[in-house]
Amino acid sequence: MSTEELKGKKIAILATDGFEEVELTEPKKALEKAGAETFIVAPESGTIKAWDHTNWGDEYEVDVNLDEAKAEDFDNLLLPGGVLNPDQLRMNKKAIQFVTGFLHAGKPIAAICHGPQILIETKELDGRKMTSYPSIKTDLINAGVNWVDEEVVVDQGLTTSRNPDDIPAFNDKMIEEFREGVHEELAPN
Amino acid sequence: MSTEELKGKKIAILATDGFEEVELTEPKKALEKAGAETFIVAPESGTIKAWDHTNWGDEYEVDVNLDEAKAEDFDNLLLPGGVLNPDQLRMNKKAIQFVTGFLHAGKPIAAICHGPQILIETKELDGRKMTSYPSIKTDLINAGVNWVDEEVVVDQGLTTSRNPDDIPAFNDKMIEEFREGVHEELAPN
Repeated sequence: MSTEELKGKKIAILATDGFEEVELTEPKKALEKAGAETFIVAPESGTIKAWDHTNWGDEYEVDVNLDEAKAEDFDNLLLPGGVLNPDQLRMNKKAIQFVTGFLHAGKPIAAICHGPQILIETKELDGRKMTSYPSIKTDLINAGVNWVDEEVVVDQGLTTSRNPDDIPAFNDKMIEEFREGVHEELAPN
Repeated sequence: MSTEELKGKKIAILATDGFEEVELTEPKKALEKAGAETFIVAPESGTIKAWDHTNWGDEYEVDVNLDEAKAEDFDNLLLPGGVLNPDQLRMNKKAIQFVTGFLHAGKPIAAICHGPQILIETKELDGRKMTSYPSIKTDLINAGVNWVDEEVVVDQGLTTSRNPDDIPAFNDKMIEEFREGVHEELAPN
């Protein structure tokens, strides 16, 4: 049974090969159940390959090529984790530009596990309260983040979680923040 | 033909599942050719599994379990990269203690690709000149590093390189620094 909470919202899911499978599929399902339309945005055309805990997983179709993607065409952004996926995306100028577009427009962003690594590259995390997979804790603190060890953290439209076990709590808070729409306080001064 | 440059030196190679295969095997071969004894140190007993560019590679035997390893038993430390390997090791307190032991004793360290991620956790990189795989450049800069884009960088006994293409230059400088022995300047004040 779908609800109408996110009806009319277009959500971008930025990913590349090596995204942690359940960190894309589960939030995607929850967003669609809440009435949103979701779009997998990737530097690749065709498909991208998931990572399933300890090995490669299934292939997923790319809906929008990153070269054609603009933050203004979407309401919100979801950043799944996986160790390999953000490691590649954070080196992609177009990806950083895309992510920064959401931040500057105050459009709520949700990032889980290693997903916050991409946000480090925006250089606009100073003073934000966040969590993440513990391996990148020091990097987030060094980027100015007030890092906390909680299953889900919400700060002015930015929702973060630590790992796949946190997905239910992550989905709930993400949907709440996405429903509220633009958060002016999310945009850097 | 082996030389005697590193005769009598014991070199620890700290790794876990997902180390980039050639970043361990090639420097190891070069160190042994220069007369050193090398030891794969890992949190695992038995074997650890390499990563070979885009998929899992071969299994390698662990020589010393990390729980029994002490920096004082070795002359030098090699940190291979791979995306998955340092991501795990940097969360391991014993691994950080082990690495910090080399730093405090001024025993030369060589790290390639994502290997420097482990060094971030020592919290003693401020002011050091280093390179790395480009994805972790911002994290190193935020940790206080003077990051440069060169095939090999040497700073007071700390040798770093960017990726597998840099291995020949990395090996040469690593052997030079390891041969010189303890660098008092490597130890933090």
